Amino acid sequence: MEAPALRWLDPPGGPAIALLDQTRLPAEEAIVTCTDVPGLVDAIRRLVVRGAPMLGVAGAFGVALAAYRGDDVAAAAASIESARPTAVNLGWGVRRAFAAYRQALQGQSQDPERVAARAVVAEARSIAAQDAAASASMARHGLALIPPGARVLTHCNTGALVSGGEGTAFAVILAAHRAGRLAKLWIDETRPLLQGSRLTAYEARRAGLPHAVLADSAAASLLAAGAVDIILTGADRIAADGSVANKVGTYSLAVLARHHRVPFVVVAPVSTIDLDTPDGAGIEVEQRPADEVTSVSGVPVAPAGTPAYNPAFDVTPPSLITAIVTERGIARPPAAGTLRVLTAGSGKVEGPLAAAHVERWWS
Amino acid sequence: MEAPALRWLDPPGGPAIALLDQTRLPAEEAIVTCTDVPGLVDAIRRLVVRGAPMLGVAGAFGVALAAYRGDDVAAAAASIESARPTAVNLGWGVRRAFAAYRQALQGQSQDPERVAARAVVAEARSIAAQDAAASASMARHGLALIPPGARVLTHCNTGALVSGGEGTAFAVILAAHRAGRLAKLWIDETRPLLQGSRLTAYEARRAGLPHAVLADSAAASLLAAGAVDIILTGADRIAADGSVANKVGTYSLAVLARHHRVPFVVVAPVSTIDLDTPDGAGIEVEQRPADEVTSVSGVPVAPAGTPAYNPAFDVTPPSLITAIVTERGIARPPAAGTLRVLTAGSGKVEGPLAAAHVERWWS
Repeated sequence: MEAPALRWLDPPGGPAIALLDQTRLPAEEAIVTCTDVPGLVDAIRRLVVRGAPMLGVAGAFGVALAAYRGDDVAAAAASIESARPTAVNLGWGVRRAFAAYRQALQGQSQDPERVAARAVVAEARSIAAQDAAASASMARHGLALIPPGARVLTHCNTGALVSGGEGTAFAVILAAHRAGRLAKLWIDETRPLLQGSRLTAYEARRAGLPHAVLADSAAASLLAAGAVDIILTGADRIAADGSVANKVGTYSLAVLARHHRVPFVVVAPVSTIDLDTPDGAGIEVEQRPADEVTSVSGVPVAPAGTPAYNPAFDVTPPSLITAIVTERGIARPPAAGTLRVLTAGSGKVEGPLAAAHVERWWS
Repeated sequence: MEAPALRWLDPPGGPAIALLDQTRLPAEEAIVTCTDVPGLVDAIRRLVVRGAPMLGVAGAFGVALAAYRGDDVAAAAASIESARPTAVNLGWGVRRAFAAYRQALQGQSQDPERVAARAVVAEARSIAAQDAAASASMARHGLALIPPGARVLTHCNTGALVSGGEGTAFAVILAAHRAGRLAKLWIDETRPLLQGSRLTAYEARRAGLPHAVLADSAAASLLAAGAVDIILTGADRIAADGSVANKVGTYSLAVLARHHRVPFVVVAPVSTIDLDTPDGAGIEVEQRPADEVTSVSGVPVAPAGTPAYNPAFDVTPPSLITAIVTERGIARPPAAGTLRVLTAGSGKVEGPLAAAHVERWWS
């Protein structure tokens, strides 16, 4: 696992999971090393590691950590899965890893626990590798939606910090840059935790993208000025009807996009699609502590004890979403039918779906 | 002038203007004392003193300061007027004070400069007193628009810190609280300078209002949840067609209000209405430094040198505004006709206008 955000450490250095502390970027590149499951759960809750695809990878390595340590692996898996409620990938990664563990335990070997632990690490690495491949495929599909000279607006952070590869929406943006189509990347700072200005600006700078950050509420005036051609975001959970839970502020952008007739596109791997959640009303939205809003980098910005409304996510209905780009093709419009085809897992849906649903709407 | 935000100091302690430093609230209640016009211009630019009505008062006292000091008063007036481009009240207050100065100079006295200086102080005090009276009148008119049990959303800061009285939108909110109609005040934190969480939460706490702050981008999910009954904001400049320039993010709220069918109401004195600016396109929007976005309270939150799009204001078209509440009545809808009646200065337009334009739309 070579992603910048997470490294697995085998014994004797481990077992451990080394995380790049995303709460301290860009000021410092500090590493948090989790040597047990409670440490990992705390790191997930504190957003040391974050972002839908990366939470799947981290959850799987958490199961590996429990298996290597000889913990109660089922209890550990349940604990990791419940660390944060909204991102579906976390539970998905944990369950994939736990299934690999149980299957390996049933095999015949002299040291089944050790063999099973190795199997979980292999499964977690496979999840990361598949995520990298999915990133590349999402980038390829998404690129077809980016016009030449595009001014792209994005929200939160969706790059290599959240992925085994180059990410979701950010992978599409990088592809657009390499194809010479990116005129400007507008980055919402993404309050309260500023993942846009702290993390996406950091990644944009490293990649040499033309970019600028803005207060989230300034996006409306950019749209009114005609300075945005397309909005791209990631997703934390996509319900069966195409409703998208993503970082708070995403829904606000979707409403603004509709008002200004700008395409609003979500980029996410199919593992983010949760057919067991029928619609947006069924998505549990994590409420986070008030002090994320009332202080910034530890400095109070409101009177002590001020209450805050601080949902981590909001839910965008499919009627406001132009398209959902996945590694298997594009759901356009996002709806029960298109999402079911993409998640069917029958393999080669990519070609016909892309053909059926991708249109170059700017031409 | 007894407003908390600004005090005039006569000789021998002065001439000087003592400003409550709004950039340091709520952490500390520090005073910045301006003893000359460049000091005042700097304080206005740094937002030590801010808010449309208070800028009118500050501008007038700035002319008094120049007159007392024996400066070139015309040059000083021009310098103060151009300190910030968007708020129309600044230039309005300066011009009123300068007119009083010139008129007093023409009078016969042994010490015309000293008499003129005193006349300017009197005029500035009169502006502040009129603003206090206007606040009370706006509160009375605006209260008619607030339903019982109202959950009100506001943006930026519009209370006693920006006014000779209780402010604009905040004065209406206080009136609603006293009338027992305010169930909750939702306060947008108002990035980049956090006037909502720093200043409005501070005023709400002192007044005992039920309140909570939120990241600006979280307002959309509150609206989607049906948790907002009305949105109230102030204004920095209102064009003849009813377009409103106000703190960046106001336009975003207006679009969201329309999408969710929630009334969007602007509260401002008639001195904010600028009939010389025909429409929104004619309003110059101040662009502010990038570091207001890329750092918070001096702590960097983006990689060094990250560019930022940082307009101080945005412009909301009249089609998205339900009503404009002034001290002379309510313009509903906001349009050239209703605004011209309000600004005509013919005195008693209050009664018929209120009757014609105020409807209790929640009943």
